[in-house]
Amino acid sequence: MSPLAAILLLLVVAKGLGELLERAGFPSMIGEIAAGVFLGPAMLGIIEPGETLEIFADIGLIVLLFMSGAQLNLRTFARSGKAGAMVAGTAVAIPLAAGMVLGVVSGFDIIHALFIGIALSITSIGISVRTLIDLRQLKSDIGLLVVSAAVIDDVIGIVLLGFLTAFVTGEGYGSGIFIMIILVIFFFGLVLTIGKRVIIWLFQVSHKAHTHEMPYSVALICGLLCALAANEAGLHYAIGAFIAGLILGDGIRSDRSLYDSLSDLAFGFFVTLFFASIGLLFPPSFAEVPLVFMVLLVAVAFGSKILGGFLGSLRMLKDPRRSLVVGYGMVPRGEVALVVTKVSLTAGLITTALFSAVTLMIIITVFATPFLMVRGFASLQ
Amino acid sequence: MSPLAAILLLLVVAKGLGELLERAGFPSMIGEIAAGVFLGPAMLGIIEPGETLEIFADIGLIVLLFMSGAQLNLRTFARSGKAGAMVAGTAVAIPLAAGMVLGVVSGFDIIHALFIGIALSITSIGISVRTLIDLRQLKSDIGLLVVSAAVIDDVIGIVLLGFLTAFVTGEGYGSGIFIMIILVIFFFGLVLTIGKRVIIWLFQVSHKAHTHEMPYSVALICGLLCALAANEAGLHYAIGAFIAGLILGDGIRSDRSLYDSLSDLAFGFFVTLFFASIGLLFPPSFAEVPLVFMVLLVAVAFGSKILGGFLGSLRMLKDPRRSLVVGYGMVPRGEVALVVTKVSLTAGLITTALFSAVTLMIIITVFATPFLMVRGFASLQ
Repeated sequence: MSPLAAILLLLVVAKGLGELLERAGFPSMIGEIAAGVFLGPAMLGIIEPGETLEIFADIGLIVLLFMSGAQLNLRTFARSGKAGAMVAGTAVAIPLAAGMVLGVVSGFDIIHALFIGIALSITSIGISVRTLIDLRQLKSDIGLLVVSAAVIDDVIGIVLLGFLTAFVTGEGYGSGIFIMIILVIFFFGLVLTIGKRVIIWLFQVSHKAHTHEMPYSVALICGLLCALAANEAGLHYAIGAFIAGLILGDGIRSDRSLYDSLSDLAFGFFVTLFFASIGLLFPPSFAEVPLVFMVLLVAVAFGSKILGGFLGSLRMLKDPRRSLVVGYGMVPRGEVALVVTKVSLTAGLITTALFSAVTLMIIITVFATPFLMVRGFASLQ
Repeated sequence: MSPLAAILLLLVVAKGLGELLERAGFPSMIGEIAAGVFLGPAMLGIIEPGETLEIFADIGLIVLLFMSGAQLNLRTFARSGKAGAMVAGTAVAIPLAAGMVLGVVSGFDIIHALFIGIALSITSIGISVRTLIDLRQLKSDIGLLVVSAAVIDDVIGIVLLGFLTAFVTGEGYGSGIFIMIILVIFFFGLVLTIGKRVIIWLFQVSHKAHTHEMPYSVALICGLLCALAANEAGLHYAIGAFIAGLILGDGIRSDRSLYDSLSDLAFGFFVTLFFASIGLLFPPSFAEVPLVFMVLLVAVAFGSKILGGFLGSLRMLKDPRRSLVVGYGMVPRGEVALVVTKVSLTAGLITTALFSAVTLMIIITVFATPFLMVRGFASLQ
């Protein structure tokens, strides 16, 4: 099937299933991922993941995070940063430790145990942000806390991955990790000083352009540029796109027609392809997975993240029920964990059985998150 | 360079050069194509054309023609159809004949002469439509005439190509051509009866969807679907996308925010990538091209199309100056001619020298068209 036909088919089925789920009272995201599972290697095998689809999915994640950032601004987000860091701390440390213990107890060596711990510790910004948007809770205090924790979580996760890589390649974890951390600091330093000014200036200038669509193009260009810069610094596209959105948030929201237009581009096209592409990554078979380990892995995945989010936010929110919702919000593992798992399999680091187990765990957390969140927010009313 | 970085770079340079040209009083399209020439194999060689970029360019052409169709509707377009057919008739026949004569006189055999004739006879819908949009003349009587002639021209061109292929493969031109014509008739029959009703119904239903962006997605889906269907029937994507736009025109224009949103998607992102990608197709060297033949080819390219458009529209417009503008509008050769030329080179049908000559001719017509049109419309005031 030609890439264009694949894009069309994914879009049709994802939008259709998304609408069905939405009517049934669940976030449409579930339907979109299900479309990918249904059409991809896991079931019908009509559409294979490939380079072109991956680019569309990457742009989907970028515009998703860009538009999430654009609903806030740097100040709002910075306010929730300290509390977010605390949540991220416990929501990374507890799953990491629990995953490693599970690995060792299950008879894996230290590298495999570290892999399991890391796979459990990275929350998916994409899934948690989309769920919050679908539930109209992105700008609530719980929403803000989850997003800021997920962003910081992702940065920590990337550094942890560096450790794993250093471990595996045996290069020691001196200089490599050091350079990585320097790059990350350099990225944030650059974007939040000069980058910020250049982006705001560009956006202002774009309104004076003779070509009518210039502000739209410039907003997209800034999102893509920051995403690529983050990627060059070793971070995930999502982080850069989110920061670009935060920087331009006030400007974009003050122009309703621009905001709507970018929102349509995101949720009417690219974001849908991102979620459908996640579905395409699901493997065709889980036959090799040992059942007991699988059950334990899923239990640890849910338990440790919910506990981490709960404990980290309790002091700030002072309400166990609200802290529990933060815990639910940290549950989904997604694109980063899937990529890590796939890369580890290809590198020969992990067996197919472990690969399938971790992938299945990721799927279950992704599908469960919207249900947990709906329930959690309902319990607060 | 990663495809995502290439897309970003093309977008930045194309939008920048487009803005410069626009400020200098010329259509921004010229700047966008120049960006591709500048970054591509013809000059800097930073960006190579590839599958992923091609898909973005295809979507660009599809949304360009879809949005062009959406500015009109089936009735308006059908009214200009008869006059358009007359213009298309002369604007294909004269360049075809002139090109074949030029080929034979220059010492080429009959197949090469036929190739030259066909390359000269297919007007680029994309270039002529974009020029008309940039000059705000798409809905004028001259604009309508040029577009309908270009669409019919394209259909005739595709059939002619079928003849060329049949000639070359030596399969005879009985059954192949017959099936092709049946497929084209079947496509138009299907789209304009059942297809039209299904598309209008889908679009109406989409407004009742629970997911907010559904009309936007459904409009895109209809455009892509018709484009792919046209392609399956042996026609160009552009034709299908244009018809889908005509069908949904009234519906889309009655929802200003939807119209603006789709327009931003087209002209703020994909269409720019389409024109920049045309620039990428320009070959690095024209050294082998014999000068005298080249000059004759360009002269015939301009003269025959202008004459064809002029003669075909004279009876309807009853004003030689206005008919001359129609002739100018038929001048650009573009994406289809470039593809035909490239395919013919790859198949060993034509030499590199002929390939370069025809490509250079296409480039010159593309860059000259906006200047001719600006002048032509100015002469009418």
